[in-house]
Amino acid sequence: DIFRSWQALAEQNEQVDNAFWQGKRLLITAGPTFEDLDPVRFLGNRSSGKMGFALAEQAAKFGAEVTLIAGPVNLATPDKVTRIDVRSAQQMFAAVQENYQQADVFISAAAVADFRMTESSEQKIKKQDGQEGLTLNLVKNPDIVAWVAEQADKPFVVGFAAETENVIDYALSKLQRKKLDMICANQVGENLGFESDVNQLTLITSTKQKALVDSLKRQQAQQLLQFLAEQL
Amino acid sequence: DIFRSWQALAEQNEQVDNAFWQGKRLLITAGPTFEDLDPVRFLGNRSSGKMGFALAEQAAKFGAEVTLIAGPVNLATPDKVTRIDVRSAQQMFAAVQENYQQADVFISAAAVADFRMTESSEQKIKKQDGQEGLTLNLVKNPDIVAWVAEQADKPFVVGFAAETENVIDYALSKLQRKKLDMICANQVGENLGFESDVNQLTLITSTKQKALVDSLKRQQAQQLLQFLAEQL
Repeated sequence: DIFRSWQALAEQNEQVDNAFWQGKRLLITAGPTFEDLDPVRFLGNRSSGKMGFALAEQAAKFGAEVTLIAGPVNLATPDKVTRIDVRSAQQMFAAVQENYQQADVFISAAAVADFRMTESSEQKIKKQDGQEGLTLNLVKNPDIVAWVAEQADKPFVVGFAAETENVIDYALSKLQRKKLDMICANQVGENLGFESDVNQLTLITSTKQKALVDSLKRQQAQQLLQFLAEQL
Repeated sequence: DIFRSWQALAEQNEQVDNAFWQGKRLLITAGPTFEDLDPVRFLGNRSSGKMGFALAEQAAKFGAEVTLIAGPVNLATPDKVTRIDVRSAQQMFAAVQENYQQADVFISAAAVADFRMTESSEQKIKKQDGQEGLTLNLVKNPDIVAWVAEQADKPFVVGFAAETENVIDYALSKLQRKKLDMICANQVGENLGFESDVNQLTLITSTKQKALVDSLKRQQAQQLLQFLAEQL
């Protein structure tokens, strides 16, 4: 009957994906990093982690062995995914350094903070009477995805570029500058990207560009893994 | 039987509370405020909003009319509570200014950011090649609880002081400096306070101090409302 045919077709499609991803080892970072100023205050960013978690979930369904390094997010661990929780960029960097050599593919979907405090204060910073302003001196964080792309034994490296303007141009320049194998250009704006279930993504390698139709991050994760499989 | 007696006693206890809080109007702020640097980055703090939400829930159960002004938190609105969502300190201040005159009691349980960016950038701030540091210039946010305490038609004003050290001394000085009617001193530390279900609270007025036993924020909300009722 019709339902059985549809189900068989669906299973066949999954088989095709499985065939490629079965046993492949993916290392994925997801979510924001929070950089503590003191025990109370932090510098954060709006990444929800949904894209990275959707990729981890989908890849695991396709039979890949997935390690997910997650910043502070409110998301459940997908089935069959190994999760490592971190807070700061430095913690995420350490977890990536420990795990990248076991990976066939590294997907850097996290929105890593560019800067952190020179030193986090162990006590809450108190404002003084009559103090009208505060100056924060920040230093650059390690560039995790660029570091992985520089290693001799590097996996296939996929980055993300989230921008409010000129996203394709910026993504292309980031791909070249950081020597990435692939980059996902992510247009951020009204109801798009951060903290949202929908996304406007363009997948870019040195020779190809593929714009995905606006859709749910879940479905885009499938399309992204499909496109990625064609590059490997 | 025993169950009936226990139930009757419990209902009687609730009646006592109800008698006082029935129809009283409470304005409560809860959660952190997030100060945007640009569409992606923000300065945040670790308040979960649990204490303010527990107070709102309990007061509504006691029959009070509760308006809850909530910063960015992941918490469901308690039954029969009117909720106003805000993000920044300035938005919270505007919501308080609109609502304080209708309140008998104002409880400032929110962890309002002391400072914000001079101006939030509408486009994502890009780091430049070779840029090794970033300096953020912040300005003071309005002091919401002090502003309410200064008004001629002010409600009974309750503040919170969350500190990692010398919390009672600091709370007493804040009570006097800001002319609050009552302050709740909150010891923040390992497994205490921020992002936690447990809390170490001392309730302070100009003439009284009452240390609550370590316990769940829910139970403390009841004790706090009880103590508060005795001051009104």
